[in-house]
Amino acid sequence: MGRTSDAREKILSAARSLIELRGYSALGVAEICKTAGVPKGSFYYFFESKEALALTVVDEQWAGQRRAWERVLHGGAAPLSRLRLLFEETEAGQRAGQQSCGTVAGCLFGNLTLELSNQSEAVRDRLQGIFEAQVEMVESVVAEALGRGEVSVTDTRAAARALVAQLEGQVMFAKLYNDTDRLGPLWANCLALLGAPAPRVSAAGA
Amino acid sequence: MGRTSDAREKILSAARSLIELRGYSALGVAEICKTAGVPKGSFYYFFESKEALALTVVDEQWAGQRRAWERVLHGGAAPLSRLRLLFEETEAGQRAGQQSCGTVAGCLFGNLTLELSNQSEAVRDRLQGIFEAQVEMVESVVAEALGRGEVSVTDTRAAARALVAQLEGQVMFAKLYNDTDRLGPLWANCLALLGAPAPRVSAAGA
Repeated sequence: MGRTSDAREKILSAARSLIELRGYSALGVAEICKTAGVPKGSFYYFFESKEALALTVVDEQWAGQRRAWERVLHGGAAPLSRLRLLFEETEAGQRAGQQSCGTVAGCLFGNLTLELSNQSEAVRDRLQGIFEAQVEMVESVVAEALGRGEVSVTDTRAAARALVAQLEGQVMFAKLYNDTDRLGPLWANCLALLGAPAPRVSAAGA
Repeated sequence: MGRTSDAREKILSAARSLIELRGYSALGVAEICKTAGVPKGSFYYFFESKEALALTVVDEQWAGQRRAWERVLHGGAAPLSRLRLLFEETEAGQRAGQQSCGTVAGCLFGNLTLELSNQSEAVRDRLQGIFEAQVEMVESVVAEALGRGEVSVTDTRAAARALVAQLEGQVMFAKLYNDTDRLGPLWANCLALLGAPAPRVSAAGA
């Protein structure tokens, strides 16, 4: 039992790295198993198909990222400070990835959205749910900042979508130029989108 | 000669549609030739490799889009009206694509950035040049608006990057949700990012 669980984890880990590096379509089950060091028969013991594997990779990635977002966005700091921390942690995460594998990998969900949403309805559905959840988490912080008079937006949902879109767009450019400094302006962009005063040195404080 | 040119055009047209629909990695040369209705031997007469074909597809797409952007952004209207028209034309283009093929295809350059920039340095280099050119075109309009006192930004290059990033992020969501209405807020987002007054009914006029 210990060994079987281990094989499943090895397959998932290999798939996560390979999808991050080369996308989904370019991969075959044989290559995933070879990288994982498990026999091909194991694959179909754990996963019905390559699509089922991709969905599991997405779910596990989101489970981890969701916990990180909740920790930051439900923290005790002032709402705008929590948003700022979200962008800073995103930048730090992309930088750590670049240092370990040489290239900025970008956002797994954004990558798969552009690669797969017109090919797999199951993947599209899962990614829609993830981005909807991200927007809801950001929206609740924006609404809190609005209640404190710190931002001036007329539609908190639209504002939250604009923030997540800006994040995805800038992460795309960080990947394209293999340069995490591209994420530096996220905080100033966020304040502008929310109609908040321009960044000040003290803005990070609660 | 007429027939050979025709075969090249057929291959390019098939490749463009297939890449738009399913991305680059999932495609084989055999499938492209089958869709184009040309013998596989023709392919290597015109293109050295699948990557060379992808670069040609990207170049041709950008040649057309660049002309469209220049027409809009170098037009005679006031600078902010030209930016607004750029977003409206983007939305109209995505809507037309959706009506003809059933799904929002998104931006070819954004799609290939996330799929390929860590796999092909030639494609990465080409896409970097295209997005740099887009940012420069937008920046010159932002600078013009700044000179007229219509926006308040401290860094026109950073502002232009934020606008193009917002465009790519919202186009990503339009594709994910197969819904071009997602592009509706682009103009309000643009004004916010530029520190310009909120949209008014008369804002489209020159």
